[in-house]
Parts: sequence; structure tokens; C-alpha cells
Amino acid sequence: MRSFGSDNHAGVHPDILSAIIKANADHVIAYGDDPYTERAVQKFKEHFGSNIEVHFVFNGTAANVLALSALVNSFHAVFCAELAHIQVDECGAPEKFTGCKLFPLPAQDGKLFVDEIKMNIIGVGVQHSVQPKVISIAQTTELGTVYSPAEIKALADFAHSQSMFLHVDGARIANAAAALNLSLKELTADVGVDVLSFGGTKNGLMCGEAIVFFNPEIAKNFKYIRKQGMQLASKMRFFSAQFEALLSNELWLQNAKHANRMASLLAGEVEKIPGVKISRPVMANAVFAYLPPAAILKLIEKHFFYLWDEKTSEVRWMTSFDTTEDDVQVFVTGIKDAFSRSHSQSILSG
Amino acid sequence: MRSFGSDNHAGVHPDILSAIIKANADHVIAYGDDPYTERAVQKFKEHFGSNIEVHFVFNGTAANVLALSALVNSFHAVFCAELAHIQVDECGAPEKFTGCKLFPLPAQDGKLFVDEIKMNIIGVGVQHSVQPKVISIAQTTELGTVYSPAEIKALADFAHSQSMFLHVDGARIANAAAALNLSLKELTADVGVDVLSFGGTKNGLMCGEAIVFFNPEIAKNFKYIRKQGMQLASKMRFFSAQFEALLSNELWLQNAKHANRMASLLAGEVEKIPGVKISRPVMANAVFAYLPPAAILKLIEKHFFYLWDEKTSEVRWMTSFDTTEDDVQVFVTGIKDAFSRSHSQSILSG
Amino acid sequence: MRSFGSDNHAGVHPDILSAIIKANADHVIAYGDDPYTERAVQKFKEHFGSNIEVHFVFNGTAANVLALSALVNSFHAVFCAELAHIQVDECGAPEKFTGCKLFPLPAQDGKLFVDEIKMNIIGVGVQHSVQPKVISIAQTTELGTVYSPAEIKALADFAHSQSMFLHVDGARIANAAAALNLSLKELTADVGVDVLSFGGTKNGLMCGEAIVFFNPEIAKNFKYIRKQGMQLASKMRFFSAQFEALLSNELWLQNAKHANRMASLLAGEVEKIPGVKISRPVMANAVFAYLPPAAILKLIEKHFFYLWDEKTSEVRWMTSFDTTEDDVQVFVTGIKDAFSRSHSQSILSG
Amino acid sequence: MRSFGSDNHAGVHPDILSAIIKANADHVIAYGDDPYTERAVQKFKEHFGSNIEVHFVFNGTAANVLALSALVNSFHAVFCAELAHIQVDECGAPEKFTGCKLFPLPAQDGKLFVDEIKMNIIGVGVQHSVQPKVISIAQTTELGTVYSPAEIKALADFAHSQSMFLHVDGARIANAAAALNLSLKELTADVGVDVLSFGGTKNGLMCGEAIVFFNPEIAKNFKYIRKQGMQLASKMRFFSAQFEALLSNELWLQNAKHANRMASLLAGEVEKIPGVKISRPVMANAVFAYLPPAAILKLIEKHFFYLWDEKTSEVRWMTSFDTTEDDVQVFVTGIKDAFSRSHSQSILSG
Repeated sequence: MRSFGSDNHAGVHPDILSAIIKANADHVIAYGDDPYTERAVQKFKEHFGSNIEVHFVFNGTAANVLALSALVNSFHAVFCAELAHIQVDECGAPEKFTGCKLFPLPAQDGKLFVDEIKMNIIGVGVQHSVQPKVISIAQTTELGTVYSPAEIKALADFAHSQSMFLHVDGARIANAAAALNLSLKELTADVGVDVLSFGGTKNGLMCGEAIVFFNPEIAKNFKYIRKQGMQLASKMRFFSAQFEALLSNELWLQNAKHANRMASLLAGEVEKIPGVKISRPVMANAVFAYLPPAAILKLIEKHFFYLWDEKTSEVRWMTSFDTTEDDVQVFVTGIKDAFSRSHSQSILSG
Repeated sequence: MRSFGSDNHAGVHPDILSAIIKANADHVIAYGDDPYTERAVQKFKEHFGSNIEVHFVFNGTAANVLALSALVNSFHAVFCAELAHIQVDECGAPEKFTGCKLFPLPAQDGKLFVDEIKMNIIGVGVQHSVQPKVISIAQTTELGTVYSPAEIKALADFAHSQSMFLHVDGARIANAAAALNLSLKELTADVGVDVLSFGGTKNGLMCGEAIVFFNPEIAKNFKYIRKQGMQLASKMRFFSAQFEALLSNELWLQNAKHANRMASLLAGEVEKIPGVKISRPVMANAVFAYLPPAAILKLIEKHFFYLWDEKTSEVRWMTSFDTTEDDVQVFVTGIKDAFSRSHSQSILSG
Repeated sequence: MRSFGSDNHAGVHPDILSAIIKANADHVIAYGDDPYTERAVQKFKEHFGSNIEVHFVFNGTAANVLALSALVNSFHAVFCAELAHIQVDECGAPEKFTGCKLFPLPAQDGKLFVDEIKMNIIGVGVQHSVQPKVISIAQTTELGTVYSPAEIKALADFAHSQSMFLHVDGARIANAAAALNLSLKELTADVGVDVLSFGGTKNGLMCGEAIVFFNPEIAKNFKYIRKQGMQLASKMRFFSAQFEALLSNELWLQNAKHANRMASLLAGEVEKIPGVKISRPVMANAVFAYLPPAAILKLIEKHFFYLWDEKTSEVRWMTSFDTTEDDVQVFVTGIKDAFSRSHSQSILSG
Repeated sequence: MRSFGSDNHAGVHPDILSAIIKANADHVIAYGDDPYTERAVQKFKEHFGSNIEVHFVFNGTAANVLALSALVNSFHAVFCAELAHIQVDECGAPEKFTGCKLFPLPAQDGKLFVDEIKMNIIGVGVQHSVQPKVISIAQTTELGTVYSPAEIKALADFAHSQSMFLHVDGARIANAAAALNLSLKELTADVGVDVLSFGGTKNGLMCGEAIVFFNPEIAKNFKYIRKQGMQLASKMRFFSAQFEALLSNELWLQNAKHANRMASLLAGEVEKIPGVKISRPVMANAVFAYLPPAAILKLIEKHFFYLWDEKTSEVRWMTSFDTTEDDVQVFVTGIKDAFSRSHSQSILSG
């Protein structure tokens, strides 16, 4: 099976798997007090600057929720896009774990801007109102778009002017960096991000996400938050080894670049198909498109992907580090075939 | 490094690692809707009976906390041993996530008995009092002892007579089954256990624990609890594949038997050393012993293990699936050496 | 001071105060096991039907939050109007205490309708999504409008068709019943409401709200929820006595009718003033109006009320059980004066 | 009915009721922005020093839980006596609302001492362990005993040496001050207390408790904690007016002294009755005694009080501000009568 359903339908990159296998030697102390973890942390400092603190957790929901937990009290509010993963796809974990209210805001192409947030900052200092504390954005966004460094900086500056924090859900931060041709640091620390959920799984890891704090003061109690958040791995070395490998030899970047290139290739091909309309700017590893419902039905018989919006007949196709050019060609052929089959059928049934 | 500090200082059993490597082929759907997970669930049903529901989570804290979450409302109380992992080692995750009160009770050799619990059931039906709802025991216990099936059944029967549930923290359930020469089902479903945290990591997995519900009704909302509990793996196949391998070819049992045998070997050897006193019944893969403080200090210079109780000078030594006879002999020699070195020193300083 | 700022700027109705004074005799058992509470509960049954369960709490936030707590698990979602008190004015207490996500929806004149909710019911049965469980409406709404019984029934029927509940925040339910000339039962039990927050404070009590459950099964653990929710009064008799008095001799209805009549009087008078435009249907005890900013500034110098929306220059005026016709006339004169003063000033400064 | 069951079986002191009645004039702004509240706060400053911050809540559970909420994160631990109200009588509200673990400790005569706490401070800085943060004591204790200022200071000094806080559950702080002949300030601010739950209800209020922060920094977000904690009264003036009256003309002290004197009188009388044994030091307004079970059964037919411990046949008798000498004499006569009736009966049935 080859899927365009999600970048987590891929397996593990061979270099990551090798790192896991190599880590399986001898005994080491559990819970992160091991040389693998020390080296992985060092790698993060190489990429993000030495004044960070970084902790590893199991999955993206935990990375987001525990990052937020380090920033808020229960009477605070978090602004996010209305399609944000924390709003839509985490089964209410942010509210459950932090006690906070999330404020989902309309977001053009998945992006938040200062003006929209500013309009919604109300009740500051008023005891009846939750107090705005965090702006949480996704990079890349849930719609496959990418914030420019200037856009992030504007949000960070605004957040800080309001004594708020900027959190970035970077489940696909590597794809964003690849798309912008920027270092990870240029896209985060250098533009004022306070905390980053750094995605590993969608970029080739078996399992593992990191939370990068750009102000160690914020992280000072994080070890307790992680443990109480049920996210402390006992055999930590196997998570750390994956991160060390990902951040070595530009593997993180190659994986992301490749996925982005495959999305670009796919978008280029499908654009030529009459009846398909690309619906969002293709900036990283996601392609959104409108297809006729009949064609979607035919396509989905043979290929795996998700219908994004039934009402508008919009689909989402994700590429990953292991999507091949061949996968793309087979899929494009599949789309063409779906069109002709749905067309014949409509003639037959007409 | 060879450690007697914990059974999670070991790495991954080669068969488990092979299963991970084999699972790394092709694309599969994320979040558990994949053939690996289907087969792993099937394996659990073979071992525990077909009328179970089972879900996988990342670690033992999550297995315990989410199992409890499925059983309680926030105004309920959970009885546990005063040394229970949920009481002592989970940084308050049970309280944070369930809102419940834990009632730690004195526990002879780590075991709870009905009489002790009965004495502490107070305020039933009284609005000022948390309402007793769960008895949570560990099998093996935190002191390396093992409940007999009759002891478990007595607790389960009592729990049910009070409209309560029995939860078993089975981080080392395999070691208990091996020690008792019983099947997993005989030790759980057959004696009235309601929910089991089934330990994988300490028995040779890289990462992964399972929650086994013996009454599917209790599990009916568990998928939401797991997701909101930040414990749903996206690339689930790599966790399921580990469980499938562990529960095949009696690997779970061989690993546990081996670890138990190494503990037995170690206990047998150290008993002969004058000045060492085994402090708890050695029933599975833990050896507790009293050593003179000076000997402990010498031993810890060269070998890794944990001081259990500074006041009584008691140490804990754990064996794992990969502890070798050689490891044991080296360690025993180390103990003897520690004695002689501490003795010389005390003569010198005397 | 006479205020049109809120119906909780009023004090206690004399009959209620008399009831408090009369209750101050002798000793009685605390926490609700007293004859005052028994009689108050009986009064609720007279008004709402015998198959209810009712519990008293201190304030409206608690009534709403604990009512919701009885209906949901933490992975559930609650639909409400975007201006709902639970969304806007309770400092995130619903999220903190229930762990749930609130879904604020646009609401014409403050009212929710089935179509809007239906469009937002997504992800049912999907583990990543919070599960819809409650529709929460306010009667009267935060905009002073009133749901008809048919409108409530439509919401209740829809909720039940989806295995959901209908909660009514009835901080001003008395004003709604008075406006519609219906009994409390006709407006709740008879049209399918599951749980009602029954408002006492804004209708003349010193302090006290009730939670009425129309299905006692839902309330079966409520006594623990209330106690754990920090809402169990020790000297309960003084709350129960207030409710008994409120529900006797139609005091609840007279108070509400009077407040409504005062709002109607006020609206009728201000409509005649050039430059004032009534902005919402005046159905109960709230009058919303647009005024020129300069006139608002002048008026607020001498009279107390709240600016509802600075952007649109809309104000809110509330009347209460003790608003007098004289209060209204003085206020209307004040408005006229504010206009002429703001006008002179603009001439002077022009 | 005259009860020795609890000091909250009494009603409202006439001066408090007068204050409520007087506050029922005119309109005032809700939620505490009113002159009554300003004056009540001023009264607290007169008694506790000007560098405090004080907030009013509805009941004792809320006072304790919200006080703790201001001091802790969810990964913290709170030490308390095993009989503490927060441990035994609040239905798990502290855990639910703060997420913390409570550590109940054995407490001689209801009092905690540094040595016991010191022994239980473990795992500081260890990520697996909840982190000790608060010592919470009750003054008077749940056993009617009173901490001396030196005892409190020792606890406060120790707490501060560990970067911990000292919280005092002062549901009966007035009785303690009366017993010790000390000012409220000498018993709190002057001996290092960080936060006090100041009890009003049991000392003659209709309803109302105060939280006094001796370090305003701790209170800086408290207004949000209170509102989110569902404890902000809308018609606040009626609570503030009660506190103003209680803290004027030494009413708080007279009420407490009277209650204490009645307990002393009762203890003196019952001591003389053969077969009754006072079981705890009578220091404030509680009398604990052992009675033969048969006598208890007879006594409880005609008088209301609580059996404290069925196993030891210990009863608790509380006096209140409105207990009269006559009440005591009637009760003492009742005890004697119970003895003689139970004796006759045992002769008859013998």
C-alpha cells in the first residue's frame, strides 16, 4: 500500500532505524540519564542555539499540550486557528490537561495574523474573563501553508507586547524550514518563538517529538510536567538515538525537502488534469484540491487519502520522506483514470 | 555497563527488534487501523480470552492512569499499597488526570489484603467523603513479591461486593505468571481482575504497555480517554508489532522465566556472603537485601543499583531478560570485594 | 444609587429577607438535612413536577458548571452561543472543572437553533474528536431575548436524537416564564429540558441558585459533584428558606413580571428620544440600544450601566424586581439630558 | 432543637443579621466593587496588618482549596494531618481542583510537627516524585486542640527553609485566638503563616469565609482563581457586611470566647460523671469523650451530636456562639439520664 493520506502512514527512515538498532547495546540508565540523550540534546543545541532546553515526549498531542502546560495557568486562554490540531484533532487534551479555554480564530490559508488576535483580546484584567496568554500557530499550517519569518516575528512581538507567549506546533517544522531554505534557528529562536513542538514522527522517526524551550526559565519545572503528563519514556535512549540521527547529516532537511518536492511534483501534474483545481498554495508537503465527487469516489476505491471537506469536495494529499516519484506517477494516473471512469459511468447512467 | 538497577536498564529483545524492523515496510494507516494492530489484539485474546478489549499506550504510568480513568469519577477513591508505583513514582499523575484521591495503605511485603482495605472503607454514601471505587494492586509487587491467584480472587470478590473494581498494575505480570507457573488468563480474568496494565517494556519491549479490559463495557469510551490522555501513537504498527512478537512463541514467558531465574541465582549466591541478609521473599526478578553501609558505598563505586531504604541500609537488585549468569557472577564477586575493601578500610581507619 | 447596570445590583426582596430572618431560630442540622430544605425541595416539585431532583448551590457559575459536570465526561463537547455566560463570563470554569471543550456558535439575537448545531456536529465516533454531548442555552438569552417553548422543544428533540442533553442556563428563567405567560414546568420539563440552572439571585434572592434535574438518574451522583465542587453550604437552611419564599405566593413571578414591565416601560420611553435606537427585541428585563458615543459619555457620568459593544456604541440596560417607575423616569430624563449636554458641548467645541 | 453536633448547627448572630439587613438598601455594583467590601477589607487589615490581601468565598472547603490553588502547581504535594478537613471532609476537592497529592500524616492530638514532616520529605528534585510545597494545618485542629504560636512558627520556619508554604485552615481560628488570648495577627502574620482560611460561618456568620494572604505576591492572580473556582458572589455586599460586623466591636472574639467557655463548662460537668472520660485536651470549643456504647445510644435518642469513633466509643460535642449555659445543663442532665436509663436497661435485660 502506498498512501497519500498522511505523512504518518510512512514507516521509519532507514538511518533512524539503524540508530535504534545501534542503541540496543548494553545497559543504560533509564529515563534520560544516558549518553544517547546527552548527545541528542547537544544536537538540538547545534541547531537551535545553546540557550535552549529540550525534552522528548512520545507524540504530537503531548508535545503541544505539555508545551502549553508550561506556559499557562488554568485561567488563561490560548489563541489558535480554527483548524488547529490542538483545537480539532486532540480530543480536548489541551482543555483537559491545562484547564484553559482555547479561542479558535478564522485563519486565512491556515494562518493567524495579529489583527485577528488583537480584535479578540478582551477582558484583560477582568476577573470574569479568561486571560490571554498564548498564541499557538502551526508551522507548516494544517492547510500546508508556511509562515514567513516576518509573519512569525510579528506574532511573537505582539505576543510579548501583551505579556503573552508564542507557541509553534512544529509537527512539520522541518518541511517549513526546507520550503523557506532557512535554518531551524532562523525560523524559531531568531524570530521570537518561545516554545516549539518539534516534530519527529512525520519526518521519519518511529516515534518521538521534542519540546524546545527558547527561554530555559519557562522550562524550569518541565521535568515534573512531563512525568505527571505520562510522557517520560523509561528506555529513553531509543527516542534520543532517533533524534540524534535525525539531526545529523542533515537527515531532517533531506527528508523534508524530499517530501516537499514530491508534493510539488504532484501538484504540477494534477494541475494539468482538467477538472482538478488546486485549492491552497502548495508550499510544503501537502496538496489540497477540489475534485468532482464522482471522481473522488472512483479514486478512493484504489488509493488511500482523506476527503478534507465533503461540502466543497476538497481533498488533501500528503507526501512523506519516502514518497517516490513512481508513487506520484501511479497516483496521477489513478486520478486520470478516476476521471475517465466516473465520466463513462455518468454517460452510462445518463 | 551491566546494571542491576532496574529491568528497564536493559535494551530490546532481539526478537522484538526484528519485529520492529519487519514492520517497517510499505505504508499503513495510522493510529491503529492496521493489520499489525489487528494481529496483536488477536494475540492478546489468545492469552486472556476472547471477551477482552485491549488498547496500547506508551508507558506504565499511562497504562495505570488511563486504566483508572476508565473506572472512576473524580469523587472516587483508589486504594493502593503505600509503596505503589501509582502512589510513589508517577509524580501525581493519577490525581492530576482522574481528580481522585489515592488511599495508600500499609502493605506487608508489598501486598494488600481485604482486612486492611475493609477497615478503610468509610463514608460510603456520605456526601463529604470520596467514594471507594478501585483497589489497585501491583503484580509482581514493588517489593518483588507475588500475589497468589487466591489472594487476587479474594480482593476481586471483595471489590465486587462493594461495587468496586480491581485494577492490577502488571508492569511485571509476566514475571508473576512465570513464578507461579500459571497462564496470564489464570492470573487475571479467571480470578476476577477488571482491568490490567500489561507491562511490555520491562519484559523486553522497546516501548509499549497494554491495557486489558476484562469487561468490554468498561472500555466503551476508552478510545477517547486514550487520545485525550495523549497516548495514541500515530505509527501504531511499531508498537503492535512488538506486542505480537512478545506474545508469540512464549517469548513473554521465556523472558520472564529467565529474569526470575537470574534473581534466584543471585539471591542464592549472596545469601552465602556473611553480612548480607536477604530482606524480602525472592519470588520473581527482584532481590532485596540488607548490606552494611560501608559495603554499599564500595559496591556502588563499580556497579549500578539503587539504595532502597537509606535508614535500614536495604538495597534493591533487579534482573532482566538479558541478565546473564556471568553478570550475576561478576556482581557477586563485586559484592564480596566491596565487603573486603570496606573491611580493610575500617581496619585502616579503625 | 440606582443602577441599570445589572439585575444583581439590586438587593434582596423584603419577603426573602423575612424568610432568612425567620429561619434564624434554634439549631438545625447542617448541609441540607433540615426542614427548610425539605420544604424548599417540595416547592420545586410543585412548580416543576414531582419527578425532579433539585440541589442548591451558591452562584450561577456553579449552577452551570456543576450541571454540566453531571452530564459529561472530559472528552465531551458542549455547544453554546458565542455570547453565552459559560463561554464569556465564567473565567473558564466549565473547561477547568469538566475538562470539556466548549463550542461557541454564532447566535442570532442570542439564540441557538438546530441547523447551526447540526452543521457543527462532526467527528462523532472518531477518537481524535471531542464528542458532542450537551447543548447549553440561556433563557432568557444574554441579549434579553426569549426562546419559545417550540424553539426549546426543537433543540431538546434534536439533542436527544443525538444522544445529547439539553441544559438551560436559567439565571433569568423567571423573566422568560413571565414574558411568555407560561409556568416554569411548561418551559422546561414539558419541552424536554434535561437540566436547568434555576436563577434565584437575579430574581430577588440574596444568594442562591438551584440545579433542577428532570431525570433523577442523571443526578444520582450529584451530591458528590456538588461537595467536590465546593458548593455545599453548611448553614443550608438560609438558602433553602430563600427558595421556599421565592416559590411561594408567586413571588418569583411577580418579581419577574415587574422587572419585565420596567424594561418595557424604559424601552417605550427611550424609543421616543431621537438618536436612540433599540437594538434587540425587548422581550424580558433587558433593553439594548445604540446611542451616540458622546451621549453615552455624558449619561455614564450620572448613571450606572454597561457599554455592551464599544465598536457599535451599543449599551445594555437591565431592570430588576426593585426598579421603580420613578427610577425609569429619572433615567429617561438623564438620557435626554445627556443628549442635550453632549449636543451643547459639540456646538461649543464645534 | 439544641445541638452539640457542630458549631454550624447554630444560626446567625443577631449583629450579623442586622448587618445583612442594613446592607439591603439601594443598588450597589456587584462582585465586590462596593463600599461594604471596601470596609470589610479594611477591617481585615486592622486585624491582620496592612500588608495583606483578602478575598471572600462561600464556604470552608472553597477557602482551603482555593488558598492551596494559589500556592501550588499540579505536581506539588501538600502535607496535612490524617484527620485534616482537606483530607477527610472535602470529597476530594483539593485533588480535583489543584491536581496535587495530599500526604496525610499521623498527628498527635490533631497537630503536625516538623519531625514528622521532615521524615516524609522525599524525592525533592526527582522527576518521578511530587514536590513538597505546602504544609497545611488546622487551627483549632479537628480534635479541638490549639497550636501555640511557637509551634506554628516552627512549622512556618521549616516550610520556608524548604521553599514551602504554611497554610492554616482557620475555620475556627477565632476560637484559637480566644483560647490563647492572642490577636489574630499574633497567631498568623507574626509567626510566619503564608495563607489563612479565615472561618466566618462557624463563628456566627450566615455564610462566608475569607482567604487572607500575608504575601500579596502570592495573591496576584487570585481573583481569576476565585472566579474560575466558582466562588465569586454577585451580591458580594451581603458577605462583606457580615465580615465587617464580625470584625467590629470584637464580635469575633466574644463569639469565640463564649463558645470556648461553654465547652469548658460542659467538660467540667461531664468529668464528674462516672463512666465518662474526656479523651482530648479541651482547649477551645470541642469536647471529646469516651462513653459506654449503651449510654451513647440512649443519649442520642434525645440529643443531637456525632459519634466520632465507633471503635473506641468516642463522641464529639461542639459548642457554638449561641450555646447557652442552660443548653449545657440540659445536656449534662441528659447524659446522666442516659447513664441511668442504660444502666436500668442492662439490669432489666441482665
